[in-house]
Amino acid sequence: MATVSPAVTGGPAAGLDPAYRNGLKAALMFGPIASDIAEAERIFDRTLAPHKGPFGPLVEHLRHYRGKRLRPALLLLTAEACGGVAPAHHTLAAAMEMIHTATLVHDDVLDEADVRRHAPTFRAGWGNKVSILLGDMLFTHAFHLTSTVDGRACQITGEVTNRVCAGELRQVTERGNLELSEADYFAVIDGKTAALTECCGRLGALYAGASEEVAAKMASYGRSVGLAFQIADDLLDLTGTEEAAGKTLGTDLEQQKLTLPVIHCLNRLPAGEAAKLRDLIRAGGEGLGARVLQALEKTQSVTYAKRRAEELSRSARQELECLPRGDARSILEAVTEWSIRREK
Amino acid sequence: MATVSPAVTGGPAAGLDPAYRNGLKAALMFGPIASDIAEAERIFDRTLAPHKGPFGPLVEHLRHYRGKRLRPALLLLTAEACGGVAPAHHTLAAAMEMIHTATLVHDDVLDEADVRRHAPTFRAGWGNKVSILLGDMLFTHAFHLTSTVDGRACQITGEVTNRVCAGELRQVTERGNLELSEADYFAVIDGKTAALTECCGRLGALYAGASEEVAAKMASYGRSVGLAFQIADDLLDLTGTEEAAGKTLGTDLEQQKLTLPVIHCLNRLPAGEAAKLRDLIRAGGEGLGARVLQALEKTQSVTYAKRRAEELSRSARQELECLPRGDARSILEAVTEWSIRREK
Repeated sequence: MATVSPAVTGGPAAGLDPAYRNGLKAALMFGPIASDIAEAERIFDRTLAPHKGPFGPLVEHLRHYRGKRLRPALLLLTAEACGGVAPAHHTLAAAMEMIHTATLVHDDVLDEADVRRHAPTFRAGWGNKVSILLGDMLFTHAFHLTSTVDGRACQITGEVTNRVCAGELRQVTERGNLELSEADYFAVIDGKTAALTECCGRLGALYAGASEEVAAKMASYGRSVGLAFQIADDLLDLTGTEEAAGKTLGTDLEQQKLTLPVIHCLNRLPAGEAAKLRDLIRAGGEGLGARVLQALEKTQSVTYAKRRAEELSRSARQELECLPRGDARSILEAVTEWSIRREK
Repeated sequence: MATVSPAVTGGPAAGLDPAYRNGLKAALMFGPIASDIAEAERIFDRTLAPHKGPFGPLVEHLRHYRGKRLRPALLLLTAEACGGVAPAHHTLAAAMEMIHTATLVHDDVLDEADVRRHAPTFRAGWGNKVSILLGDMLFTHAFHLTSTVDGRACQITGEVTNRVCAGELRQVTERGNLELSEADYFAVIDGKTAALTECCGRLGALYAGASEEVAAKMASYGRSVGLAFQIADDLLDLTGTEEAAGKTLGTDLEQQKLTLPVIHCLNRLPAGEAAKLRDLIRAGGEGLGARVLQALEKTQSVTYAKRRAEELSRSARQELECLPRGDARSILEAVTEWSIRREK
């Protein structure tokens, strides 16, 4: 296996505002759903435990892929706010995290990424072939987990993963399309990110006995948080530092994958300059990031993307107004802030 | 997209016994389940139809991956023999074929194969990245299809795909292990092939209202047919011709993937000769196939592997004795023969 280079072991504290990060972590991990998150993690581990025999180091390495627990936290907090967490929620939270992990493992193959969360990716350690099959295995275990709940959960999960995969496929087939529109961009991130957070909101509410109306609002909350989060993540790829992010950055431009600020910039620049910028992106190479950042500055495109993320964050917050006040709702509100202010 | 070279467009008739092939095709396609197979195909197509917009050529190319329809045929014939085909069977047959197709698309990435069924693979035409995501999409659509039946179908399907993926992963992690035992080999093919045919037998019986006892026998039938089929397929990779098989052959040895005859041979050869053969396999290169075939001849290992496949085929046939006599049972019996006599 590839060893972890010192350059990527700076630790999670590097470059972050510790108060903010710890505050969120505490809120998520030690708030009203701390024991529920722990139970979802036990289910995640127990599900894969039978594979420890033949694939011990692989299963062990999965812990490096477990980061923010955003999806299980959203599902469990929504459940808590909508009437209370039930055993089905723990299983579904584990399944959602497993689906997310499956997409990460495959994403690393697609992005040829070697580092994630300060650790080598499966791809770096075991190669693409093992990564493909491990991702498949995580997908199927997630579906099997869901099937232990009931048929409706399977249907909702099946629908959402259909959307996730279509979004991911669209992203790959749109690579190199330097005429990508904002609408196309939103179609991609709707699938690859927002579909799953939307599903977490819906499942959390439905299995807590919420009405279809409340479940729709929680689904919309999850979708907006997911979109905002992805816009922020894409900004990070352009403007962040690898040390703080704990993963390879700048890959979007390198792979000619246009994200919101770049699309906005290309639309705002005079035609001649936009054509030049497209040529630069097409040519790639050293210094491309800095050149693109200059152009983004000129058209205020980072500001624009931040504003779009803030609008989504606000709209997510509004959906929460139907919920009773309490800790769970407060944390869901905090998540709308965090999703756009995150630095990793 | 890669063009199809004339070398691989010899057509399906090349090198086969047309009477046998057409007889089987007729039996499968125009026998008592002809209209059911057609309905399962319509469901398969309808499921992917919404993707024709963004991914038209991809969805279109899937027809090259639809070959023998062994899995839907097994499921529908079992259903017919156990009491009659119901709408759930059509959906489940489409889902099983979709799972199988997903594994083929990913297998082509793992095997770096450029030709399948006389046509270029997705990998050859669109690259590995698109192939990975297309495979994922087929998996999730299959699960979603299953969820339109009921929770039990999802559970059975989830269990079987867990086994399929574990078998595939084991196969990849065992590559280059030239000490692989027969038990290891059977563990791999149990997962990668027999789990799904077993599932087809079980689902066919259960959703026709068969008793658990009959369903267990049909599952065992499917498993044995799958194992026999895979042994025959692995033999084909060693002894067949690419023209007849319509796909790249010799990949197992090239990838240091030991199959039954080679394992038997290595166990039977005197230690010194076995060590030499392992060195040859490790070194790879031109002429390896011919050298291995010489060694297999010496230890009668092709004969041995054929015998093992025949035993499984007989054992599958015995499981059918609990069924009422009729066309469906007769074809299921014929499938046990065909699984080991197939040339492609």
